[in-house]
Amino acid sequence: MRVGIIRALTTTDRRLLNSHGRLLRETFGFDVTTRCIQDQPSGVHDADSLQRAVPKVVELALELAPDVDALVISCAADPGLPEARALLDIPVIGAGSAAAAAAFAFGGRVGVLGLKHSVPGPISDALGERMLLIDGPESVETPDGFLMPTGIFDALAAAHMLVDAGADVILEATTGLTSIGMADVLRRRLGIPVIDPVTAAGSMLVSAVASRDLQAV
Amino acid sequence: MRVGIIRALTTTDRRLLNSHGRLLRETFGFDVTTRCIQDQPSGVHDADSLQRAVPKVVELALELAPDVDALVISCAADPGLPEARALLDIPVIGAGSAAAAAAFAFGGRVGVLGLKHSVPGPISDALGERMLLIDGPESVETPDGFLMPTGIFDALAAAHMLVDAGADVILEATTGLTSIGMADVLRRRLGIPVIDPVTAAGSMLVSAVASRDLQAV
Repeated sequence: MRVGIIRALTTTDRRLLNSHGRLLRETFGFDVTTRCIQDQPSGVHDADSLQRAVPKVVELALELAPDVDALVISCAADPGLPEARALLDIPVIGAGSAAAAAAFAFGGRVGVLGLKHSVPGPISDALGERMLLIDGPESVETPDGFLMPTGIFDALAAAHMLVDAGADVILEATTGLTSIGMADVLRRRLGIPVIDPVTAAGSMLVSAVASRDLQAV
Repeated sequence: MRVGIIRALTTTDRRLLNSHGRLLRETFGFDVTTRCIQDQPSGVHDADSLQRAVPKVVELALELAPDVDALVISCAADPGLPEARALLDIPVIGAGSAAAAAAFAFGGRVGVLGLKHSVPGPISDALGERMLLIDGPESVETPDGFLMPTGIFDALAAAHMLVDAGADVILEATTGLTSIGMADVLRRRLGIPVIDPVTAAGSMLVSAVASRDLQAV
């Protein structure tokens, strides 16, 4: 399956740009093409940056669509998701709503691990009272904060606090954590399920679109 | 990842018994062990058969749990899901709630394709007004009905009716359709996403538990 990945964070670092695509290729065997929006090096982290991202994501979706079987908007705030769906005939999956959907398939309380000041709307809307929140990683106000050691340590501390507070599953509510491969680290250290939003987006495509291709991997 | 699969349908046919496990092994590389409940050759298809299945599923869950990393209750009605979760520390996924969760990651109306007279509770509860229903395959009142040519043709006709009625995605609301590999047939014929409930259950585990193992497939 050919999957177009739209990153809502501007970067010229090819390793960072391709980190989500590499995860989906290695996990599911997808043939991936990644593009990123312009002029937002700190990605989507509040209402203003979300609003600015929407038309840029839609433009990339229109550009990528003719050459792919499905699109993933690889940001937990799902910028431009309804707009892209309204314009396109192929499946469009948002990492935020996919992660929230995955959380529904597990029982119990969902510990939301994200940026300091914001829980993405698709996640809070979907989870409602099942959501368990703490103040969040002290130092990380934008997704690129997870590229710094302090951000990584603060995220780990926040994850432990969520477990102590009674989380049965952890949901990574920012794809900044995907970029650094945090889910596997947390799974090993916490011993409970940890939902990676980009993997969740890929999973949804596999559930509904891709089983034949997968078997050929 | 070692996954225990509990079938809520009694069979001595090894190909039928192992059909769900084979799908999860081929799609995700899981190491699977399958067991089925006793004395229910027509599976779960109404309130009474659901109630009778619950203690049997829980018993198998307790037997399988020590040797696996996660359990899948491979029935769209999720028999025994809350009971098994309350007793076990490993993730337990139900095919019904997993399929409903996957449907949430897609936009639009969800066409529910199942048995003639019943929509499993986990699916109707989760989807609510997003659910699109028709009368269902005329001849199929129990999951084993899909093992007959008439059942297969009637299911295909019902799927076309759901698309004509405006479904944006089809949800297979019985794992009887998984047993005959119907999802791939429907995807090719209908051209829209078709959610297989057993694949959806496996997907949820991959989103939250299994990425390392997968990469070794």
